[in-house]
Amino acid sequence: MKPLRSSFPLSALSLALACAALTAGTAHAQNLDAAAEVKRVLASPVFKSAAATIDKEHERIVEEGIKLTEIPAPPFGEKARAEEFAKMLQAAGLSDVQIDPEGNVLGLRKGTRSDGKVVVVSAHLDTVFPAGTDVKVKRQGTKLYAPGIGDDTLSLAVLLGFVRAMKEAGVNTRDDILFVGTVGEEGPGDLRGVRYLFTKGAYKDKIKSFFSVESGDVNRVTNGGVGSKRYRITFSGPGGHSYGAFGSVNPMFAQAQAAAEFSRILVPAKPKTTYSIGLIGGGTSVNSIPVSSWMEVDMRSESVDELKRLEDRMLKIMQEAAEGENFARSTTNAKITVETKLIGDRPAGNTDMKAEIVQIATAAIEAGGYKPDYNWSSTDSNMPMNLGIPALTIGRGDVGKSGRSHSLDEWTDVEKGPMVKAMTTSLSIVLTATGME
Amino acid sequence: MKPLRSSFPLSALSLALACAALTAGTAHAQNLDAAAEVKRVLASPVFKSAAATIDKEHERIVEEGIKLTEIPAPPFGEKARAEEFAKMLQAAGLSDVQIDPEGNVLGLRKGTRSDGKVVVVSAHLDTVFPAGTDVKVKRQGTKLYAPGIGDDTLSLAVLLGFVRAMKEAGVNTRDDILFVGTVGEEGPGDLRGVRYLFTKGAYKDKIKSFFSVESGDVNRVTNGGVGSKRYRITFSGPGGHSYGAFGSVNPMFAQAQAAAEFSRILVPAKPKTTYSIGLIGGGTSVNSIPVSSWMEVDMRSESVDELKRLEDRMLKIMQEAAEGENFARSTTNAKITVETKLIGDRPAGNTDMKAEIVQIATAAIEAGGYKPDYNWSSTDSNMPMNLGIPALTIGRGDVGKSGRSHSLDEWTDVEKGPMVKAMTTSLSIVLTATGME
Repeated sequence: MKPLRSSFPLSALSLALACAALTAGTAHAQNLDAAAEVKRVLASPVFKSAAATIDKEHERIVEEGIKLTEIPAPPFGEKARAEEFAKMLQAAGLSDVQIDPEGNVLGLRKGTRSDGKVVVVSAHLDTVFPAGTDVKVKRQGTKLYAPGIGDDTLSLAVLLGFVRAMKEAGVNTRDDILFVGTVGEEGPGDLRGVRYLFTKGAYKDKIKSFFSVESGDVNRVTNGGVGSKRYRITFSGPGGHSYGAFGSVNPMFAQAQAAAEFSRILVPAKPKTTYSIGLIGGGTSVNSIPVSSWMEVDMRSESVDELKRLEDRMLKIMQEAAEGENFARSTTNAKITVETKLIGDRPAGNTDMKAEIVQIATAAIEAGGYKPDYNWSSTDSNMPMNLGIPALTIGRGDVGKSGRSHSLDEWTDVEKGPMVKAMTTSLSIVLTATGME
Repeated sequence: MKPLRSSFPLSALSLALACAALTAGTAHAQNLDAAAEVKRVLASPVFKSAAATIDKEHERIVEEGIKLTEIPAPPFGEKARAEEFAKMLQAAGLSDVQIDPEGNVLGLRKGTRSDGKVVVVSAHLDTVFPAGTDVKVKRQGTKLYAPGIGDDTLSLAVLLGFVRAMKEAGVNTRDDILFVGTVGEEGPGDLRGVRYLFTKGAYKDKIKSFFSVESGDVNRVTNGGVGSKRYRITFSGPGGHSYGAFGSVNPMFAQAQAAAEFSRILVPAKPKTTYSIGLIGGGTSVNSIPVSSWMEVDMRSESVDELKRLEDRMLKIMQEAAEGENFARSTTNAKITVETKLIGDRPAGNTDMKAEIVQIATAAIEAGGYKPDYNWSSTDSNMPMNLGIPALTIGRGDVGKSGRSHSLDEWTDVEKGPMVKAMTTSLSIVLTATGME
């Protein structure tokens, strides 16, 4: 999960939604009294039994979270953790467990009145931390410290807790539920797991709604997916001696011109659209005209159209800057060329506030005694939102019980009372949305 | 020695000289018939005896060159080579040998009618190659391959050969000669050895003229010293999340604006003045506004005034770009600041074509049967030239007998006939200039 802190009041959010190009889930919004449904689920003896199992198993869930956290899962290195999670999912009671070709772990739990589609309940396997990071969990009282513990590894254990609780309580749902551990949610993974799930995997046209269970507070509902495009731009030229070859084209001059022009693009505040240059490099010595120069740019938007507009302008600027340098200095030895390589592509989208799953989440969070907080972020839910499939990223922890995600001192508080309450609230969202009987 | 290939015909050189701010050696140009003096020296039995010693010792000079080449001497790491060279200089017959506080090796040879000043005959101890480079010399026929063999290590052995030849032949000179092995001639050394010699050392106000014996062809006379200034410019700011903190100042945008403006400076073709950006860097990840961004710029000129004009404009541009960014984006968290650090400062200067040492070098080269080739470059001679002290960088090898300087496959050909002839020509320049009796 990208720790984006933009938290909107509802009115601003509505405006943003009005501007956004893609809005998922409006078709499902009509026929449900979400508050009544949540109330029914919470009052049912079966749900109470499931909640009791979670309470009883609290320490086991924590232990399994620790176990999974201590299996490193850097971007593109999730295999060992995936294999362990697959085993645990099977042990928790799902018979149909597999690892798909991309590396996602899939475990199916059949519904009683399935329409042939599934509701996905997922958490992500990967962390941002590179191979070699010390992932040993340190416990101080009820707080656990470890890279990736909160984002998102403990959520995998929470899914296992959900599966066992549903089994022990004999929960029946209308819908088939596909429990998923995704690969590649974090930066360089570029949503490869969820992308595969929706565009290539066995369930690609069979997912009716999507929940990503994340590290955050249970009252936090991420119903907007900020899209992003990232490029590595490389300017190349002939190079040469800084004195002897003076007057020859310099890729760093082209890049500077491009970056300066890029910095002048006006973007809307709503739908929020942003850009940055985060990394630059190039050259071999101060006394040589460099052979190449590069920069990595990041562009994001709540709106598909605004992101496209920004991307198009950026790409045009790069070409123009190369061309400008070729007219400003000598190209006798060679011209400046520019290569634009897409290194990140997260689609934008959102789930309408009126969508059934947003209403259910809102009602369940309120019933749990929390105040819903709607957010835009960049998570696995971006992918289904972009495809128009209702999706939410929901929290599984009590408010304020985790922090420092993406840093080496990441922590999460597993104090029993608040953790069980938050988990039970998350479970009530899932079971209401899947039509618990 | 910087391998600058700008070789001027005489008329262009004269024009350049007319424009240059500092011109050394005009005061010495009147009372000498250089051709006649060279002729007298070459015809003298003493000189012939010295030349015969060089011929006899050819293999020994080569062996000593190999020995010194195989002692690594990276920038700021010349000590071991300096100590060995000091011993060898003493063994060659100089009684007053010392290593000065900067690391230069100094060996004095008294003249018969000294005016209390010295003529410096130097070569540089350092190479461009970092510690750990394989400096083992490979011999193929008469060609020696090794990093630094030509530039400038073999010249140290040539100085030893000169000292022994002068001793054996009983050469008397009017002037005291100070034989010097300098540290820090190459890039990062920034002329620290010769700078110390002229501005702080025991001989600082006692040097009347200066010869740097270099790797190049004996017909090549470097009488122009290209000045250079190098800066590392660092832009710093608050940093932040590329999405969450969008709108905040970005040091890479400030740097881009600065670099683009820098690229637009018009400089004169004569006196040749150049600028470049050779290295850039900064940032930690594509999705963060960087905390800092840097670039290294190189500026050079044959003219002190033009170099100063360029430097002043560059420094102003950097400040303006930081200020511009602070007005273009939010400085709520912090402003962009810019640090400009001087990392290289080679003074410009030249020795007038009419100066005695240029006339002597010209006559001696022509007497050797070569065609003089006058150049501007960046060598130890820059320092005295800038101070108005007559200085030349001269070659010690036959034409076309060395190459690939500053590269790992650097080579020099030590074939006896051409090498002895070139060395003898170099010696005739030195002995004519120091008033051989």
